[in-house]
Amino acid sequence: MRAFASDNYAPILPEALDAIAAVNHGHAVSYGADETTARLQTVVEHHFGAQATVFPVFNGTGANVVGLRAMLRPWQGVICAESAHLNVDEGGAPEAMAGIKLLTVATPDGKLTPELVDRRIVRVGDEHVVQPGVVSVTQSTELGTLYSLEELHALAEHARAHGMLLHIDGSRLANAAASLGVGLGEVAAEADVVSLGGTKVGVLAAEAIVVRNPELTSSLLYLRKQSMQLASKMRFVSAQLLALFEGEVWLRAAGHANAMAARLADGVGDALAITQAVQANGVFAILPPGAAERLQQDFTFYVWDEHTGEVRWMCSWDTTEEDVDAFVEAILGVVEAVAM
Amino acid sequence: MRAFASDNYAPILPEALDAIAAVNHGHAVSYGADETTARLQTVVEHHFGAQATVFPVFNGTGANVVGLRAMLRPWQGVICAESAHLNVDEGGAPEAMAGIKLLTVATPDGKLTPELVDRRIVRVGDEHVVQPGVVSVTQSTELGTLYSLEELHALAEHARAHGMLLHIDGSRLANAAASLGVGLGEVAAEADVVSLGGTKVGVLAAEAIVVRNPELTSSLLYLRKQSMQLASKMRFVSAQLLALFEGEVWLRAAGHANAMAARLADGVGDALAITQAVQANGVFAILPPGAAERLQQDFTFYVWDEHTGEVRWMCSWDTTEEDVDAFVEAILGVVEAVAM
Amino acid sequence: MRAFASDNYAPILPEALDAIAAVNHGHAVSYGADETTARLQTVVEHHFGAQATVFPVFNGTGANVVGLRAMLRPWQGVICAESAHLNVDEGGAPEAMAGIKLLTVATPDGKLTPELVDRRIVRVGDEHVVQPGVVSVTQSTELGTLYSLEELHALAEHARAHGMLLHIDGSRLANAAASLGVGLGEVAAEADVVSLGGTKVGVLAAEAIVVRNPELTSSLLYLRKQSMQLASKMRFVSAQLLALFEGEVWLRAAGHANAMAARLADGVGDALAITQAVQANGVFAILPPGAAERLQQDFTFYVWDEHTGEVRWMCSWDTTEEDVDAFVEAILGVVEAVAM
Amino acid sequence: MRAFASDNYAPILPEALDAIAAVNHGHAVSYGADETTARLQTVVEHHFGAQATVFPVFNGTGANVVGLRAMLRPWQGVICAESAHLNVDEGGAPEAMAGIKLLTVATPDGKLTPELVDRRIVRVGDEHVVQPGVVSVTQSTELGTLYSLEELHALAEHARAHGMLLHIDGSRLANAAASLGVGLGEVAAEADVVSLGGTKVGVLAAEAIVVRNPELTSSLLYLRKQSMQLASKMRFVSAQLLALFEGEVWLRAAGHANAMAARLADGVGDALAITQAVQANGVFAILPPGAAERLQQDFTFYVWDEHTGEVRWMCSWDTTEEDVDAFVEAILGVVEAVAM
Repeated sequence: MRAFASDNYAPILPEALDAIAAVNHGHAVSYGADETTARLQTVVEHHFGAQATVFPVFNGTGANVVGLRAMLRPWQGVICAESAHLNVDEGGAPEAMAGIKLLTVATPDGKLTPELVDRRIVRVGDEHVVQPGVVSVTQSTELGTLYSLEELHALAEHARAHGMLLHIDGSRLANAAASLGVGLGEVAAEADVVSLGGTKVGVLAAEAIVVRNPELTSSLLYLRKQSMQLASKMRFVSAQLLALFEGEVWLRAAGHANAMAARLADGVGDALAITQAVQANGVFAILPPGAAERLQQDFTFYVWDEHTGEVRWMCSWDTTEEDVDAFVEAILGVVEAVAM
Repeated sequence: MRAFASDNYAPILPEALDAIAAVNHGHAVSYGADETTARLQTVVEHHFGAQATVFPVFNGTGANVVGLRAMLRPWQGVICAESAHLNVDEGGAPEAMAGIKLLTVATPDGKLTPELVDRRIVRVGDEHVVQPGVVSVTQSTELGTLYSLEELHALAEHARAHGMLLHIDGSRLANAAASLGVGLGEVAAEADVVSLGGTKVGVLAAEAIVVRNPELTSSLLYLRKQSMQLASKMRFVSAQLLALFEGEVWLRAAGHANAMAARLADGVGDALAITQAVQANGVFAILPPGAAERLQQDFTFYVWDEHTGEVRWMCSWDTTEEDVDAFVEAILGVVEAVAM
Repeated sequence: MRAFASDNYAPILPEALDAIAAVNHGHAVSYGADETTARLQTVVEHHFGAQATVFPVFNGTGANVVGLRAMLRPWQGVICAESAHLNVDEGGAPEAMAGIKLLTVATPDGKLTPELVDRRIVRVGDEHVVQPGVVSVTQSTELGTLYSLEELHALAEHARAHGMLLHIDGSRLANAAASLGVGLGEVAAEADVVSLGGTKVGVLAAEAIVVRNPELTSSLLYLRKQSMQLASKMRFVSAQLLALFEGEVWLRAAGHANAMAARLADGVGDALAITQAVQANGVFAILPPGAAERLQQDFTFYVWDEHTGEVRWMCSWDTTEEDVDAFVEAILGVVEAVAM
Repeated sequence: MRAFASDNYAPILPEALDAIAAVNHGHAVSYGADETTARLQTVVEHHFGAQATVFPVFNGTGANVVGLRAMLRPWQGVICAESAHLNVDEGGAPEAMAGIKLLTVATPDGKLTPELVDRRIVRVGDEHVVQPGVVSVTQSTELGTLYSLEELHALAEHARAHGMLLHIDGSRLANAAASLGVGLGEVAAEADVVSLGGTKVGVLAAEAIVVRNPELTSSLLYLRKQSMQLASKMRFVSAQLLALFEGEVWLRAAGHANAMAARLADGVGDALAITQAVQANGVFAILPPGAAERLQQDFTFYVWDEHTGEVRWMCSWDTTEEDVDAFVEAILGVVEAVAM
């Protein structure tokens, strides 16, 4: 039975496995000076513009920390949502590995706004205070919500107006682009640096830092190595990313996961409070007391907030309509049962 | 044409690819709580003892830095050879990511001895001086040499006698064990923490931190995550390591690479000065002026020391006898040609 | 004209200058192995108990960061008030110099409670999340408020019950003890580590880390040096602290500052909203629009919150009744003027 | 009896104490925006040029680490002598607090040369290797030797030619200038950043970072605060530096210490091997076996190298001719005694 716990529980796309196998012949220069990585660079330029440079890395925490290291001076911090993966789920890597202070803001839906950003723009020029240097948004967010292109544009403008750079944690950028019906590059149009996710979309272990601001490119090379994110047999990491992004595999895989989340939300929406707009591949809902425990006997998923009973259900590239329908049926049954 | 530049230029073993494919079905808990990783734990116990715990990571720099973070307090340093990968080839990761001072010692052959270690045991208890906390040896070394089991034992005793822990950078531990004709566990018998290499032996991107000192185990869990070395879809990393270490694939692959290096050394030994004992999968030799450039027109390899003309030739699991013989012939021809 | 901007604007106590002069003869061993520092150790034991050890340092940020470095493993964070100096006014030193993540909580009055602490005790044992390791309270707080001994006791118990240590940022511990009418040691009775302030009470540049938990003592020695907080001519730093704490100079100086704040609050309390309980040497109040600018033509002080018009007025050991009365008169005059 | 152990054992100059007392009246803006610090800025411009900016700090380790933080990107290291204070006596602060890798070179006399620097300029542009970013020289050196102005010029040119900056650890810059018979600014003529020593010359606790490269100035402000080196009651730190550098107190104090070292070397030079040129305020000599222990019954000094019997004798501003003569007599007596 497939889980609704995390898109990281899913297996890898057959295309990813094939791509690894396809480059597995003969010797290739290590650390990125190989033909597969060169091809990936071309693909990234196609998506993100001619000035974009790709730096494949191992995982999302690595992509975020390395990208931010390139964007910040030591006295600058990162304005981000309190619920950002950076703040909540990276084991203190930003602070411990990069000395970065996160300037967090509480948000109702995981999304920053210019007004929320302003709360952390204080005492500019005062040496006693970490200065705002970067605005980091997650797209799609940890709460399954999306920034519209207009919202991203407003944030980018606001960041620039205050001398800040824009970072996108795009661990699920593919889900965002699929949901918005636009290209990857359009979602990242005004970002200086993007963490472009691969693993959650369907590959083994591959993410990329896409640097769109050419002033940051040369730093990245050194910082990726120093931050322990440089793969020796790089062709195999690049091949995974090519499998996703050279054609439209990313769109199919992420679009499918989104569709399954929508189907799930539709199925239970009348019986439950859905707490966040379902705009990507996650559904957040409040279960009545006792319901989560019962459901978890048969289905794997996380309780998001023990106090409110909010749960998180994630869909992935391999979630089937049958999986969803069976889950919906079980949810409705349990909800009815505990109501009695 | 296969290169003699690096074992990282090689493709991956068919067994590694098969192992990835074999676990690619259904959902599995992420971050290491999966069945494949549990099986790897059993295999590691078989090799390294019942008290050993395995923490798969992405690469060798990660394995070294995370392992050392668990072994050190902030005021302690690492005694290692000046030629250690830690010191030379990790982009300053020990210093920048973990604040670690390396207490280096010049060595003729990449190997520490108790006497060399003593040079860095100074001003013990003096707060002005970084205190020696760990002895780190590379086995086999960056110079293709080996510690005998007796030499390792003497270093371990010496470390313990001075209140230090023993770390093994075993990026090529398989080559060492194969060459010494002993098991992996015997090579690491007295180490507290081992970086167990997979990638150079023949997999895609998988190393493991093997913690033999139980006092360090609980720290590792947090430090691996914080150090950006925790794979989400862990089963695929563990599967690669299982492919190597569950049976004797590691022995066959590393033993073959070693044999090819020996064959190469034998072939050119009469015509050239071999500068280091050829005990693993690398050959270091002095080429006459002009010879390296000519050879590099047809073969890829690195000049190790531009001043002396010393070169490094590495063999890997896929190097064939024909590769070696063709290279020997070319070397001998060029050496003869430049001598005229 | 004396300012109400900061207790750091004040000169130093004559006793502090005399103490420096008194030890200025002959040679003394550097870095703390001198007789003056030995005497300070005795004095600190008198205040804080026989198991306490004193480590003089240069400033409050140094005291806090060095103390916390000794208390934390790399994956542990510090629960503190959002308004804590650590979080707001230390230039990101905890994060950048020590890799520490602060687990902040919004408070109405700068004070933590067990309930507020609980908000940051989440996902204990989960490697993805920085684990709560220390509760840090400021006494007296940045908002001029005080923890009662009962409140401190409850926090200490709560911290211990969750396996955490208790840190007191006592930059103004003297003000707290003077206001509570108890000894310094009673205020710090259950703390593991205390930053004991000297500069704001009336010396040149001297603070002390008082380690009450003997398990942390040996680390402190190395960490103070490594953290650039070890004075070479230590006798002069220790002499300043002796001037304050050997007799009751601290009590007189801090008690006077507290009394002046109370006088100020009394003088203006009918005309203004005092926003925080005046329990130490600071007064926080809301001025009507336009009033702050007018007052600042003659008096120096800080606007605390530009949005609300809240201002901060600090008193110091040298503030006189005449200073306060003149300031009160001016405030009342301006408030009346802008009301018209 | 005065010691020959360290210039840090000495008391403080009466001028320093007077200067502290002289500014001890009324309120002054904290953190450096006071009149005393403004006057110091003028004095520093007089010495080091109109583009120089002064940042007073607490101690030498702080001055070095903060200065270097401003000069380096994270992947750059510092070429320095193996005997540099940075490498030997700062408790790992460069590595632990700033993530800096030191690229050390063995030297016979504590002095770098362009040739020695070249040994650490390797693999430029290779992301696997920490890149040379700064050359740091100590003037006068830890071994009591001096760079001539020509030698400094050659190093500065060499650094610039390789895209590196020049840092001077001038903890004893005053001794160097006094010995060379030139101004402070001439010694530092081509440095980008200088750690200007005060404490060893004769004040309580005051050093300054002098930034001569205007591109680095704005960073320093934030880095000093973040690095815990910003004094709140700054006027008192600046006053100490003014006491030394506004007039010629530095010259008299350091020149006297130098003269006493010369007198000592002259006195014992026929009986002992002086191991380093005596060019500042230290004398290094080899004592016959057993002599150090006997002498240390009456005089305090450090054995520099336990293996060779080399000792270090330091003179300070308050060392008298009588102190020296008595010490010479004792040395000669002990040397004669142990020879029998």
